[in-house]
Amino acid sequence: MPKVSDEHREARRRQILEAAMRSFLRGGFQESSMSDIIAESGLSAGAIYGHFASKSEIVAAVASEVLEGGLAAMKEMREPDGTPSHPLDLIQRLVAGLMERAGGTALPVQVWGRAVIDPELRAMFGTVVPAIRAVIADQIALWMHETCGVPDDVAVARGAELAPLMTGILQGGITQAELLDGFDLTAYLALAAPLFEPPAA
Amino acid sequence: MPKVSDEHREARRRQILEAAMRSFLRGGFQESSMSDIIAESGLSAGAIYGHFASKSEIVAAVASEVLEGGLAAMKEMREPDGTPSHPLDLIQRLVAGLMERAGGTALPVQVWGRAVIDPELRAMFGTVVPAIRAVIADQIALWMHETCGVPDDVAVARGAELAPLMTGILQGGITQAELLDGFDLTAYLALAAPLFEPPAA
Repeated sequence: MPKVSDEHREARRRQILEAAMRSFLRGGFQESSMSDIIAESGLSAGAIYGHFASKSEIVAAVASEVLEGGLAAMKEMREPDGTPSHPLDLIQRLVAGLMERAGGTALPVQVWGRAVIDPELRAMFGTVVPAIRAVIADQIALWMHETCGVPDDVAVARGAELAPLMTGILQGGITQAELLDGFDLTAYLALAAPLFEPPAA
Repeated sequence: MPKVSDEHREARRRQILEAAMRSFLRGGFQESSMSDIIAESGLSAGAIYGHFASKSEIVAAVASEVLEGGLAAMKEMREPDGTPSHPLDLIQRLVAGLMERAGGTALPVQVWGRAVIDPELRAMFGTVVPAIRAVIADQIALWMHETCGVPDDVAVARGAELAPLMTGILQGGITQAELLDGFDLTAYLALAAPLFEPPAA
């Protein structure tokens, strides 16, 4: 029997994750069972369980794919003229990437709620949040240093300091965008602009 | 047969809500069924369904009790010397009230996740968020007017403008406090202080 190639295995893995995403978006994250995901994928149960032992494992893989792809594309974001993008534009782009890759804001809000009682999802949150904070911190440092002329070490320290708050503003914005009709995320984010005033020399 | 008094009805209602809260905190919000809540309350199924048609109705009642009690106590908060409390102290007090009344930050994060797919909880969110925003907006206006000498109409407008962002900061802080070990909510909130610089005259 020929050995299953790595490419084939990776294609199968992707097929499962895409089926899971479709299933979550249509039927709800909480409501989608392993059987739903199996049916949606068109693969056998054996094929799925060969890749993922549980729905939590699938969710963790979906989330890290969505995030890794999104975050890599946003590292040290610059405008067409080469100047660093404003940190709030990065946050806006993070949400836009989420809308595109995860089909909206529903999935993260559901995953956070579930992570409260699911140790695997909680562990994923503990990995993902520092990754998001790092991208935000880097952008703040880059923008403050190049655009505002803040010394590099001060800019880096301020980026690291502000990143948890900006991550919280991102999460609160996603939650309100998902649950409140007519919520204006752009106006909401713009209110945070005073946080980026360069520190007095 | 004597008519069941309003007091008796209200005591029963409270008994059910307290049982539901205990059940949510111990077994998880998602995992607690109507049967669990009935068992926890020590009442009959009929007694429970006479008050609440579904778990969502119970959750909505629990959330509004927790919030109404908490919010009423925080309206126009002042320090012992009579000066208005800083808006960030109000936010801190909101979280402390949540810890005390809801036993921690787990319940709101789970309810937000569930509200994505539960119309009754979503509607509750749509009522609760404006109530929280209003208390925050009033505190910002009071503090800016009395402490910073900002004209009343400007202070009121700034309070209303900032309230959605502060609500998001509160939600993001609750989510991170619940899901990240060692998260420092006080330090996180303190970062938002520059948002309350009075507008230039």
